[in-house]
Amino acid sequence: MVTIKDIANRLGISTSTVSKGLNGASDISESLRQTVLDTAVELGYTTKQMRGKDRRKVCIFMENMNFETPEQFGYDIILGFRQSAFRENYDVTIFPITPDIQAAEKYDIFMLKHGFVGGFMVGFALMDDWMSQFSATSIPTALFDNYIRKNPLVASVGSDTSEGIDDAIVHLMGLGHRHIALINGSWRSCITEQRRQAYIDSMTAHNLPFDERTMPYGYYVADSAKDHIDRLLSMGITAILCGNDLLASGVIGECLKRGVKVPGELSVIGFDDIPLAARLDPPLTTVRQDRTELGRSGFYTLHSLINRIPISRTMLRPQLIVRKSTGPVREDAD
Amino acid sequence: MVTIKDIANRLGISTSTVSKGLNGASDISESLRQTVLDTAVELGYTTKQMRGKDRRKVCIFMENMNFETPEQFGYDIILGFRQSAFRENYDVTIFPITPDIQAAEKYDIFMLKHGFVGGFMVGFALMDDWMSQFSATSIPTALFDNYIRKNPLVASVGSDTSEGIDDAIVHLMGLGHRHIALINGSWRSCITEQRRQAYIDSMTAHNLPFDERTMPYGYYVADSAKDHIDRLLSMGITAILCGNDLLASGVIGECLKRGVKVPGELSVIGFDDIPLAARLDPPLTTVRQDRTELGRSGFYTLHSLINRIPISRTMLRPQLIVRKSTGPVREDAD
Repeated sequence: MVTIKDIANRLGISTSTVSKGLNGASDISESLRQTVLDTAVELGYTTKQMRGKDRRKVCIFMENMNFETPEQFGYDIILGFRQSAFRENYDVTIFPITPDIQAAEKYDIFMLKHGFVGGFMVGFALMDDWMSQFSATSIPTALFDNYIRKNPLVASVGSDTSEGIDDAIVHLMGLGHRHIALINGSWRSCITEQRRQAYIDSMTAHNLPFDERTMPYGYYVADSAKDHIDRLLSMGITAILCGNDLLASGVIGECLKRGVKVPGELSVIGFDDIPLAARLDPPLTTVRQDRTELGRSGFYTLHSLINRIPISRTMLRPQLIVRKSTGPVREDAD
Repeated sequence: MVTIKDIANRLGISTSTVSKGLNGASDISESLRQTVLDTAVELGYTTKQMRGKDRRKVCIFMENMNFETPEQFGYDIILGFRQSAFRENYDVTIFPITPDIQAAEKYDIFMLKHGFVGGFMVGFALMDDWMSQFSATSIPTALFDNYIRKNPLVASVGSDTSEGIDDAIVHLMGLGHRHIALINGSWRSCITEQRRQAYIDSMTAHNLPFDERTMPYGYYVADSAKDHIDRLLSMGITAILCGNDLLASGVIGECLKRGVKVPGELSVIGFDDIPLAARLDPPLTTVRQDRTELGRSGFYTLHSLINRIPISRTMLRPQLIVRKSTGPVREDAD
């Protein structure tokens, strides 16, 4: 079990200072108090008050997304959500959800049975059973990277994809690239369609060539790269945007196999900036989504819905992180 | 000066309960405590702590918008903002801003001089001097009904216009209307362009006829209606959406002068739901923006920016309020 001593050791402060932070004493600074609280959540520390029975319960549903280790996309989303929930005295349950569970029970029934006053849905696809129920749900519900029309109890939380993709394309243009492809993630996902539209809008705005063949659908895994790489290279593509960092790592791997130099012959850009991105060879240029902040915004959006403020969307700005996988276009490109 | 007794009288509770609410005592409910705090703000009560010098200062700039009485659009926005700011211990200044002041001093300089750590900008037009400075400002800034690209310190707060306009058009279609016009507000305003695009998208999606003549620009005042009403009626328009409630009140007034029955011969829909809307004859069907909630969301968005969470947009869902200014299409319409 995690103790006050563990928190003190992690932060390099005294246990009495940790106690002050946890108890809201007035003689420590607000920012230090928040750091103590955030660290308590991160380490899994619980107080008597936290274990009390009268706290409002919300649930994070993880569908088709890994979150068990800091390496994985969902980890920091959950951490940020729990840190914010802690401050507002909510109890958070993490529930890995499957199509079978969704088919077996209606969303609203599930929530009412378990006493959850709100849900945060991460990783859902458009064809998931529960997605069709969100239009009419009476449970406050925040959707990560999905959007439902006209239900004032449902809100969308995510990144401003169009800015992130445009930043990446402007960066590539500055390096002389004109033939830029997008290997996207899975078909039938709201976020996949957003990235596709953002690519179309940005390429159009900058008067760059593209067509259906330069924006194939794939899957959000490394292995998906091999289905596309040969065709794109033969078309004269000099830079590839990828639906996520795993796909980008796959593109780099396929290039290595073929003796294609990154970035000498092909520039590669990922999306997300998972910890892996910085450790690839070459380190990956990518569009960072700050997942801790997305988790925090997810909680505050849900908290607003629970308080009957009809938020429709909360969007965060992503940030282009330039590393070594992008470089000047090769000289023989047209 | 407002006293604890005033708050107690307003709420019909004892002064000792008010004191408990103001002091955060644990033996009153959280929701009553929030009500006490909100009422204290509404009545203008200040505590010693509130007058302290170490509180973070933010400023609401009101440009070209009235806010002095509850009748006016800006009043509840400011109230909601101040209520939320109170809870987070910020000091709020309301500053009516003019083009002259903007021309005289750069935004960042103004903010630094006055010690404001953040700004909430309400009623700005695209050609305002300061608007062009927000792309590069280093001051956390939330914009009501405006949007700036790619500055992580600037966020947009507003209503989901496309849903509101579509709700209005679907309502009119249910009453048999097909010839629906939009008398919009002032040209060169971000929100005017959003409403125009929302009208185009919705009319297109429902396969209804429209062209440049069915969506004229006007001004956000009643008097603007007279410039458009005759032409629209002569074109066979049976329903008019208006850029705001004042414009809609003008349309109703012009109809009265001409002996055109509302809604017998023409249906009219406003936007905003200011208090006046319910008192018009006939009472106005309108798209409500909950301005108190917009103000609260404005504060929390700014608070997030100040804490370096790069919110891009916060959008609330508007709500169609059906009253008596809309009815079945007249029988002789095509």
